[in-house]
Amino acid sequence: MDYQAILEEIATEIKPYIGQGKVADYIPALAEVDAQQFGMALTLFDGTQYSVGVADTPFSIQSISKVFTFTLALDAYGFELYKRVGREPSGNPFNSLVQLEYEQGVPRNPFINAGAINVTDALISHFGSPAKASKEILAFIRMIADNGTIESDKEVTESEMLHGYRNRALANLMKSFGNLDNDILDVVQTYFEHCAIVMNAQSLSRAMLYLANHGTDPISQQQFITPQQAKRINAVMLTCGHYDASGDFAFHVGLPGKSGVGGGIVAVIPKTMGVCVWSPALNAQGNSLAGTKALELFTNKTGISIF
Amino acid sequence: MDYQAILEEIATEIKPYIGQGKVADYIPALAEVDAQQFGMALTLFDGTQYSVGVADTPFSIQSISKVFTFTLALDAYGFELYKRVGREPSGNPFNSLVQLEYEQGVPRNPFINAGAINVTDALISHFGSPAKASKEILAFIRMIADNGTIESDKEVTESEMLHGYRNRALANLMKSFGNLDNDILDVVQTYFEHCAIVMNAQSLSRAMLYLANHGTDPISQQQFITPQQAKRINAVMLTCGHYDASGDFAFHVGLPGKSGVGGGIVAVIPKTMGVCVWSPALNAQGNSLAGTKALELFTNKTGISIF
Amino acid sequence: MDYQAILEEIATEIKPYIGQGKVADYIPALAEVDAQQFGMALTLFDGTQYSVGVADTPFSIQSISKVFTFTLALDAYGFELYKRVGREPSGNPFNSLVQLEYEQGVPRNPFINAGAINVTDALISHFGSPAKASKEILAFIRMIADNGTIESDKEVTESEMLHGYRNRALANLMKSFGNLDNDILDVVQTYFEHCAIVMNAQSLSRAMLYLANHGTDPISQQQFITPQQAKRINAVMLTCGHYDASGDFAFHVGLPGKSGVGGGIVAVIPKTMGVCVWSPALNAQGNSLAGTKALELFTNKTGISIF
Amino acid sequence: MDYQAILEEIATEIKPYIGQGKVADYIPALAEVDAQQFGMALTLFDGTQYSVGVADTPFSIQSISKVFTFTLALDAYGFELYKRVGREPSGNPFNSLVQLEYEQGVPRNPFINAGAINVTDALISHFGSPAKASKEILAFIRMIADNGTIESDKEVTESEMLHGYRNRALANLMKSFGNLDNDILDVVQTYFEHCAIVMNAQSLSRAMLYLANHGTDPISQQQFITPQQAKRINAVMLTCGHYDASGDFAFHVGLPGKSGVGGGIVAVIPKTMGVCVWSPALNAQGNSLAGTKALELFTNKTGISIF
Repeated sequence: MDYQAILEEIATEIKPYIGQGKVADYIPALAEVDAQQFGMALTLFDGTQYSVGVADTPFSIQSISKVFTFTLALDAYGFELYKRVGREPSGNPFNSLVQLEYEQGVPRNPFINAGAINVTDALISHFGSPAKASKEILAFIRMIADNGTIESDKEVTESEMLHGYRNRALANLMKSFGNLDNDILDVVQTYFEHCAIVMNAQSLSRAMLYLANHGTDPISQQQFITPQQAKRINAVMLTCGHYDASGDFAFHVGLPGKSGVGGGIVAVIPKTMGVCVWSPALNAQGNSLAGTKALELFTNKTGISIF
Repeated sequence: MDYQAILEEIATEIKPYIGQGKVADYIPALAEVDAQQFGMALTLFDGTQYSVGVADTPFSIQSISKVFTFTLALDAYGFELYKRVGREPSGNPFNSLVQLEYEQGVPRNPFINAGAINVTDALISHFGSPAKASKEILAFIRMIADNGTIESDKEVTESEMLHGYRNRALANLMKSFGNLDNDILDVVQTYFEHCAIVMNAQSLSRAMLYLANHGTDPISQQQFITPQQAKRINAVMLTCGHYDASGDFAFHVGLPGKSGVGGGIVAVIPKTMGVCVWSPALNAQGNSLAGTKALELFTNKTGISIF
Repeated sequence: MDYQAILEEIATEIKPYIGQGKVADYIPALAEVDAQQFGMALTLFDGTQYSVGVADTPFSIQSISKVFTFTLALDAYGFELYKRVGREPSGNPFNSLVQLEYEQGVPRNPFINAGAINVTDALISHFGSPAKASKEILAFIRMIADNGTIESDKEVTESEMLHGYRNRALANLMKSFGNLDNDILDVVQTYFEHCAIVMNAQSLSRAMLYLANHGTDPISQQQFITPQQAKRINAVMLTCGHYDASGDFAFHVGLPGKSGVGGGIVAVIPKTMGVCVWSPALNAQGNSLAGTKALELFTNKTGISIF
Repeated sequence: MDYQAILEEIATEIKPYIGQGKVADYIPALAEVDAQQFGMALTLFDGTQYSVGVADTPFSIQSISKVFTFTLALDAYGFELYKRVGREPSGNPFNSLVQLEYEQGVPRNPFINAGAINVTDALISHFGSPAKASKEILAFIRMIADNGTIESDKEVTESEMLHGYRNRALANLMKSFGNLDNDILDVVQTYFEHCAIVMNAQSLSRAMLYLANHGTDPISQQQFITPQQAKRINAVMLTCGHYDASGDFAFHVGLPGKSGVGGGIVAVIPKTMGVCVWSPALNAQGNSLAGTKALELFTNKTGISIF
């Protein structure tokens, strides 16, 4: 299949959608991003990469980092992890306290904020300190992206710390139910640090390969998690990866994926490739509007689908 | 692959699970079913069928019928259908009124009770009367199952009518929001009639083929829906097919599927086959306990997964 | 105290408020009422009556009837009644299904719709049939109002039956929890019949006397309920009498009272008098806007308060 | 009336109830209190005091302090206060986050935890610092109780700070909605400090006099708040003073009152006296079991009621 031609068709057809929606504006560092940007990249198992638009422009990965922390925590804890966090769709806006209270402090899945904060807490306990956890998370992302220059943006983290009262409320509520080990400010800071990691679409499409290939990097042949675990992370991405539009994404795109409020979306095409699209303006559910549309075009044009 | 050998392995390994859980007991007709039963069947695209256990014993398909009514309504209304019913996971017990009220009478998906009642209402409007709708639903199921003897169980319908106050509450609530066209008792009766259809695992595995083959029956070559629609029905089955355990089913089994309180579960293996398993005792979420486990064993043993 | 002068002051000061808000428009029979009306009446223990404005114009008493059915049911069942219905404020819009589901079909108090429907069901069981219950309710109201001409408006009842899907949803939900004895349409019809009773402010202020006088009519000396029961009905009116504005009414007016969407509000001044005010336009919480204000003026001018 | 004789009758009749229920055990300092204690005190307008049992044993006033901070904040802010906090019953357990989220960070009333935390925040802003707010709250309580030795228990405050994650979650959630001015730990610490104030039943009954007498201390003749404000505080106590049993308390006791998890309950008899009862074991709603019963006996025996 001529992937480059398909990407270029998408780049043409997507133009009317770019800039539609609204860039995340709850912190200045995100609000200043130019909405008129679009980039998309694919990485095949042999390392071949196709891209279009600003696929090499770095952006804040935000909730996409939750895929990587979930991976590390699953590797560290195995099934024990599910005592702390579930794997059911939330059926509610992504940062709702209601469900967390109703379910006694156990977040429904690792991709809602409460769940990702809880997973971060688990990683701090596992690695021994907030600093060590942050270091290991970054090291893992550099490794799977095969890119040693990736960093977290300190300004974004600081800005989040000044505004993140709702996330602290979630952490305090979990702590009140006994479902959080470490100091709340430490956990929230570590969580914001990995959300503030900056990557481009090319690196992110590369970083998805281990999930497309049963847990093993198809280029380095390094195994990060078991095939069973990879399959299950994909399942959770499909059912819970897009806040309250996860059903809609599965419906229109039909691929395991994860979006972030920075405007990035990663997707996995099992046995074939990793994909990443980026366009900063978000739809009403907080997912990149043009990005979602581009992935739908991609699956329609290639006929690729897991269904 | 030696599917017969695999089915027999499953039948052996599943024994300790058969009868665990609890047979649905809210109506006498279901409560009387012997919990110690297990049957499983596969149908390939060329019509070859493998089965084990009591795969030819008929049972009440219950919510599995929602797959077929969703198909018919999607064919009749296309995207207009989504003005009446959504496609997001519900994240709540399957018959909750809370979400329906919060979302102003629009059910989250066609597989929760409110959604299926709404789809039934749409079919009554489309076909012109409750009787015609019931007739067309039954005719469609006979066609895709290639079995002209399939019937609905009148006793089960009558028993449901005597106990179904919660479903009438759902219908009245949708009507109060202007999201129901027809008389409430007519709609609820028609809904119970298709839930009361009786089939065995062999016929149900056969009936899934059009969803495994992009909307076209691979044996008769008859097209029922478009490839796009088939893909989307599969996506909704994956994200919403098992009440509040949909995430768990995706996680453990990783296939589009739909369960019913009669103890049946159907699943789709894209491009390959239809599957049905039946064992009447249910887990806490209302899905067949042994059936769910059997499907997990099946995907582990065959390595088949959409992820 | 010169009550007539006070009423006339109120009638002058209230003018800017009359017609503010919105007349109930969910059924035509209520929507057609002229919003520019205001009437108020007091009845003292010796029968002396003061009034101002259109205090002799009949209107639909609607939820005010819930005070009378609660009285009859308390007399019939005593404390047993509280197995069916609670006495806590609802803290939610008056017709919410959410709370009813959360609390397993037991309405929080007899003044929300679900509670009043349940009380009506109790009266049907007690009196033996829907017709007998309707007859006894009307007879009781005629007696306490000392007015044998009071009737229920058939047109309003019929109109309610055509639109009352939400009330039927409430009734079905209670029935699904086993907390409703009689046929749903019978119960809802009987409920609508007593809501459709037509009275004027003078008769309603007269009808409140037994609650101001410990359960005994101060004029006829007839005892309807015990002093303890009267005190408790007053307590429930104070905490639950005005939907989700009960706290606000207690805060501003400080008297036990009950409002209806027809625009009437009754209030009890213990040991002193019965009060009724009527003005059809409602505030956002569904209580007469000018009526609430008039009662606040009345307590401020007279210094009368239970606190 | 022979109040002393009535108190002694109550002390006899209440014996079977003392110790029933469960002492608050979420912090050690409260858990250690002997459940087998009962004390009750009345203070009349001329200062005459009657008491029975351990009415001079100090206990942790806990949520009773919310009456005093509400008074101070109403005096400082007037009606502006209601932009921050409502006055409707909550209809939910007292520390629920659900309602706070649903109502966008505005607590329903000043007596649920979120509301009292918000009122504390308002007092910190008004008085200029947490230390000044704490000092003024204590000074006010000493003044109205006419007891300069009252102190807050540092051990209880520290213990609360170690366990109060749910209250921090409430504070963070309000802050995320922009409805909290000051630093969260400061606010929560100040809140816990006034909850940890230690008083006995005699002092608390004395402290209620200003609310029984239209805002003016009947002994010192000092006016603390306007008659209107006193009436309204009483109304909020009646509708919201006992968590999710406020309706029940109004129903059985029929007086404005406020309870605390330390086992104390204060009540106001307008124009007559202040009352306090204490017994540490709590009923399922978190109110003193024997205390509630004793107040019901008191109103039955004296015939005193606002209704």
